[in-house]
Amino acid sequence: MNNTIETILSHRSIRKFTDRAIDPKQLETIIQAGLAASSSSLLQVVSIIRVTDKSKRALLAEYAGNQAYVESAAEFLVFCIDYQRHAAINPKVKADFTELTLIGAVDSGIMAQNCLLAAESMGLGGVYIGGLRNNAQHVDELLSLPQNTAILFGLCLGEPDQSPELKPRLPAHIVLHENSYEPLNLGDIEQYDETMKAYYSSRGSNQKQTSWSQQVTGKLSGESRPHMLSYLNKKGLAKR
Amino acid sequence: MNNTIETILSHRSIRKFTDRAIDPKQLETIIQAGLAASSSSLLQVVSIIRVTDKSKRALLAEYAGNQAYVESAAEFLVFCIDYQRHAAINPKVKADFTELTLIGAVDSGIMAQNCLLAAESMGLGGVYIGGLRNNAQHVDELLSLPQNTAILFGLCLGEPDQSPELKPRLPAHIVLHENSYEPLNLGDIEQYDETMKAYYSSRGSNQKQTSWSQQVTGKLSGESRPHMLSYLNKKGLAKR
Repeated sequence: MNNTIETILSHRSIRKFTDRAIDPKQLETIIQAGLAASSSSLLQVVSIIRVTDKSKRALLAEYAGNQAYVESAAEFLVFCIDYQRHAAINPKVKADFTELTLIGAVDSGIMAQNCLLAAESMGLGGVYIGGLRNNAQHVDELLSLPQNTAILFGLCLGEPDQSPELKPRLPAHIVLHENSYEPLNLGDIEQYDETMKAYYSSRGSNQKQTSWSQQVTGKLSGESRPHMLSYLNKKGLAKR
Repeated sequence: MNNTIETILSHRSIRKFTDRAIDPKQLETIIQAGLAASSSSLLQVVSIIRVTDKSKRALLAEYAGNQAYVESAAEFLVFCIDYQRHAAINPKVKADFTELTLIGAVDSGIMAQNCLLAAESMGLGGVYIGGLRNNAQHVDELLSLPQNTAILFGLCLGEPDQSPELKPRLPAHIVLHENSYEPLNLGDIEQYDETMKAYYSSRGSNQKQTSWSQQVTGKLSGESRPHMLSYLNKKGLAKR
């Protein structure tokens, strides 16, 4: 197994960081790693906002649902869909398609994962912060995003001050299909639920008695950030 | 510079492959790399459909806009948003939110990039195929996707039979902002356009006389897959 695969397979989300800063050269490499990512039709529709302002960090931590590590991480990067560049180059550009928001979301994930893996390969750690979308409009205003841009998620980066266990994932035979979608075998989920029950009840911190099925049903039984559609439309994205 | 960063920074999209198959153990590692990726709230909303059926490959190549490498690559993986698992576990699950489609798109990008980097670290190469969305409904039917699932993009993987130049990206000072969105300086784009003109006119294959601004304006002046919104809504996603 090579180092890249080792880095990928040993991923853990880090939510507790030392107060050590990230070396500027390391940060530069992390950003270059993001820029090297594939980009759909080379549109390059992602902007990254590095938040160094302490008061903005404190507000972002609050907007994300009081996630303290958004404030305490050495670096916090906010990934945004950005068609404003293209509109500035030529006002004929039409950004108001769901398709373009999909491109922005997929390409942001690809780019951010390059950044996170580059950081992890240097012994740093991080965690994605989708919670920024809890208050998308407030985050948008705090970062002064123009029309044709929208916030997607944040990425905390820093020196890990914790070493969490690997979190078990759905096994390949559930996620991977061949040639056609293969309907879920509920027995497979029962097995995974047992694995996750054991994980949740025995892990080092934040132990709980629950299964994956209970967790996701709880998450998905209610409305999921229903304001996101009007937010995206207001920014000139995701319509048609 | 460590091997992971070297792998990330030397990415090139590969569109010409030898006929050598990918070793099953290598493919297993590539899939495990994908599974190790971060998942929003551990919802695990991505399914991968590995297409080995030759006739399906031929159709997918056509649906993607006659991209022959979709048929010729050793492996072709289709990444899909999948809330059908969650709905099968509990019918109370509501998947029809734009937010959930965003999660699916971001998490698919993160997962697929782990797969691509794992492959690249082994000396393999690949390219993302967003063109599948040109005919989303046909691809969906070909792969028998159920409700609450939607196709996003494909990933070709195989042994490279070409060695393209690195494609210049927008420089960091354009993509990276600090604390607030910094409006585009058109002078910076003029410089990048010169870089891209030189790249397009001198690269080994498919040389052309164009700039980045001309390219993206062409791509974005018309409608961008306007059928995607109705496709996603039909699958029970992206509304509200």
